[in-house]
Amino acid sequence: MSARLSDLHAALGGVLHGTGDRVVVRIAPLAEAGADAVAFVAHPRYRAALAGSRAGVVIAPPDLVADVLARSEPPAGGWACWESPDPYGTFARLTQWWRQHVQPRPAALGVHPTAWVAPGARVHPTARLGPFAVVEDGAVVDEDAELGAHAVVQARAHVGAGTRLGAHVVLGYDCRIGARGLVHGGTVIGADGFGFAPVPLPGGEGKRWEKIEQLGAVRIGDDVEIGANCCIDRGALGDTVLEDGVKLDNLIQIGHNVHVGRHTAMAGCVGIAGSARIGAFCTLGGGAIVLGHLELADHVHISAASVVMRSILQPGQYSGIFPIDDNRAWEKNAATLRQLHALRERLKALERRTTP
Amino acid sequence: MSARLSDLHAALGGVLHGTGDRVVVRIAPLAEAGADAVAFVAHPRYRAALAGSRAGVVIAPPDLVADVLARSEPPAGGWACWESPDPYGTFARLTQWWRQHVQPRPAALGVHPTAWVAPGARVHPTARLGPFAVVEDGAVVDEDAELGAHAVVQARAHVGAGTRLGAHVVLGYDCRIGARGLVHGGTVIGADGFGFAPVPLPGGEGKRWEKIEQLGAVRIGDDVEIGANCCIDRGALGDTVLEDGVKLDNLIQIGHNVHVGRHTAMAGCVGIAGSARIGAFCTLGGGAIVLGHLELADHVHISAASVVMRSILQPGQYSGIFPIDDNRAWEKNAATLRQLHALRERLKALERRTTP
Amino acid sequence: MSARLSDLHAALGGVLHGTGDRVVVRIAPLAEAGADAVAFVAHPRYRAALAGSRAGVVIAPPDLVADVLARSEPPAGGWACWESPDPYGTFARLTQWWRQHVQPRPAALGVHPTAWVAPGARVHPTARLGPFAVVEDGAVVDEDAELGAHAVVQARAHVGAGTRLGAHVVLGYDCRIGARGLVHGGTVIGADGFGFAPVPLPGGEGKRWEKIEQLGAVRIGDDVEIGANCCIDRGALGDTVLEDGVKLDNLIQIGHNVHVGRHTAMAGCVGIAGSARIGAFCTLGGGAIVLGHLELADHVHISAASVVMRSILQPGQYSGIFPIDDNRAWEKNAATLRQLHALRERLKALERRTTP
Repeated sequence: MSARLSDLHAALGGVLHGTGDRVVVRIAPLAEAGADAVAFVAHPRYRAALAGSRAGVVIAPPDLVADVLARSEPPAGGWACWESPDPYGTFARLTQWWRQHVQPRPAALGVHPTAWVAPGARVHPTARLGPFAVVEDGAVVDEDAELGAHAVVQARAHVGAGTRLGAHVVLGYDCRIGARGLVHGGTVIGADGFGFAPVPLPGGEGKRWEKIEQLGAVRIGDDVEIGANCCIDRGALGDTVLEDGVKLDNLIQIGHNVHVGRHTAMAGCVGIAGSARIGAFCTLGGGAIVLGHLELADHVHISAASVVMRSILQPGQYSGIFPIDDNRAWEKNAATLRQLHALRERLKALERRTTP
Repeated sequence: MSARLSDLHAALGGVLHGTGDRVVVRIAPLAEAGADAVAFVAHPRYRAALAGSRAGVVIAPPDLVADVLARSEPPAGGWACWESPDPYGTFARLTQWWRQHVQPRPAALGVHPTAWVAPGARVHPTARLGPFAVVEDGAVVDEDAELGAHAVVQARAHVGAGTRLGAHVVLGYDCRIGARGLVHGGTVIGADGFGFAPVPLPGGEGKRWEKIEQLGAVRIGDDVEIGANCCIDRGALGDTVLEDGVKLDNLIQIGHNVHVGRHTAMAGCVGIAGSARIGAFCTLGGGAIVLGHLELADHVHISAASVVMRSILQPGQYSGIFPIDDNRAWEKNAATLRQLHALRERLKALERRTTP
Repeated sequence: MSARLSDLHAALGGVLHGTGDRVVVRIAPLAEAGADAVAFVAHPRYRAALAGSRAGVVIAPPDLVADVLARSEPPAGGWACWESPDPYGTFARLTQWWRQHVQPRPAALGVHPTAWVAPGARVHPTARLGPFAVVEDGAVVDEDAELGAHAVVQARAHVGAGTRLGAHVVLGYDCRIGARGLVHGGTVIGADGFGFAPVPLPGGEGKRWEKIEQLGAVRIGDDVEIGANCCIDRGALGDTVLEDGVKLDNLIQIGHNVHVGRHTAMAGCVGIAGSARIGAFCTLGGGAIVLGHLELADHVHISAASVVMRSILQPGQYSGIFPIDDNRAWEKNAATLRQLHALRERLKALERRTTP
């Protein structure tokens, strides 16, 4: 597992300072990289970390080239600087090139003999199906798509070209995912949304729940990545929609009829309740919750573990997190918080009393 | 996919105003429904939305019938009003009728040839098993039950009549689910509860965890729906219990020995810690957490993302959510919150000093 | 399902008061145990519960032996007290003995005929594979390991001796789990970490996300238990690591490059963001969240639902939970909380004004 620096550079562009005639065996963070590794630095605030790094090759912006090359005790062959106007983007594309050429992902080849494809399904000859994958009646799997072991594409569902579904993924009936998507293991797309009408029980002791059949589906655009063990529910009447370029981490819940705008990203454990409408270019931190039927404008950023209880129509960063503290301090402050409104009233009274 | 209004009405009852001699092709929300759709309105507060709706047929309570019919610019055939004392319930039953007669769910037919049934299992001749479904030794699958692709019913487990387990559902050994249940994809019923005894390590540096084997099971009543990728753990000594009519959304964690009373509903991402006892007719909002060994009385309603840290013995609505704000405001308020108890002391001192 | 008390005692040690010549049919909590059951009591604070218990056999510490034996109305054969310096540990080992000898878990026998093992995989002859289990090329399954139904061990992954993977577990390519581990159903180990570089779109309206391929893996030590439907992501460049003896409950998210120290335990629904470093002997309560790149020292304990937003370098218990209250009280206090900083300023002003 190694590559010549000149080959990396030829594939990905930029300006090379120092000789490309060297072998790179890994990509590593600045602090851990040795003479045989490529690292990257994106911003002058990491100048000190850069100065201490032993990385043989560093992807750096123009204003850090001199710093890369001026480090003391260079290895045999000297330091190399791979100049890029966007080092983080070059690093990302380098990992992709590395994955393709140096450290390829193990992949299914063709259709595994144990996979089951219904007679009425259409699987493109270039698609790859893992062991025990299932494609049900009327479903379509486009060219170069890949289904992991035990993945299930239910009746009339559609997997776009080049899209990969991981092991145990379920794409529910009538649901669609576009091209170049990636869905990680165990995610369930197209389970029923959570919809019930309350019906009084005889005797007045309470209500039971009458099922509202979920007649919609899920529509997912192109270039969408969804993590492991997520749930994207089908719509009640219309569809649940994830637009192009959306990125979801693991264990995320997307309720029925939610609409997520393009290039919005959500970290792990986020929950979006039914019929919420999330704009484009938003980010939601891990564990954030958005209540039902709310709207988030484009470019809204929600901090981790914050709960959105009202629509947010202005771009910006929003937070609502109880600060963590040692347990004794927290207990005192939390107890006082339960009297906060009363404290305010007392303060008001005091202000009135002491006003000259 | 269409139906005659007269057929819908004949099946579901109520009073029809206007002619039933028309074809309906979809069920839709008021705002999106056209002349060929059925919509519903449940409450006079939606009168304005109703007035603007182009829905050809509207399910409405008696006091809104006139409003439905009085809308201007009626389509050919005129407006129709489907009067019902409980429009939401009628709508729910309409979705069920629609699912059955107009837009049927694709379903397994009989036992798929790739399914594996242990010799000692009992699968009713009318039960349906999807591809690669597994029924282990001593398990029972009752009449008209359905197992999705890759569903696993472990040894001695019991699936009640008419109950459907989605793709990849696991019903653990010795666990039971009653009749007419529905469990969505990826849910694991009967994993071990989280039980360990701390055992000091030699040298006193800390404790390791000694496994407490979980000897109980999970018992689930009739008419229970459980969403996708949930976890319902088996009990440590006794059983974990979900009573009749319980409804759980996706990604819900139910710890060992929890008892959930009938007709209680929980939204997505809720976590109930071990041995908690939740009453009947409760609701828990998305992301709510209930700590272990607590009790919630019947008819207790917990808001989304709230943490129940003490038993709640009185019916009512309870909340505990940090309000979201723009990031700067939140930072200031959160920082001050860490001094809240001290502020209270300062206020007290001030009150004492200024008391005449 | 029963055992002689003398056999239990012979296997597990301790001092027996009363006759061992009796049959025990269950292990039960003090409050539910009858004459045919074993219960345990660990601390004098449960003296009252002990006094009321009808448990025929009670595991108890030395200072409670007399209480166990002095209970009134003994059954035929009298009360028995099983004295142990660590009753909780003895109880834990008793459940293990019971599971092995009295109530054995149903287990796969050998390799199920429907399992699929790639030609280049190495499965030890004593390993057991359930129906439709998959072992891909280059993977290793050590002696006495067990794969549940539909479990997938991807290419070059390694399952240690005696480790059990539940139904539908995925162990991703190149990932390793050590000896005596237990992973419950539906957990996905080795999905891609959530890593993307933002790339401006032409026109300046926003950014799209460029995939950073995740080139690391997951390394899990010995004696690790992981609950159901968890996600342990592979590292971006290096590996994600769970050290020996770590215990995770259900629905837990471990981001890429996280490092969890040995014997640390996390309750359900915890989320640990990327590159966080959690010490040894820590505990995290249900639903707690740790943000990315933070460090927790050894012996740090985080309460349920608390959000760790800064590194915690001192051992201790830490909390950050909004106290739950009836809805009206909460609304008032939460509204006031949004003006908390302003209240502090008003208090300050008042203090200045009233200082003599």
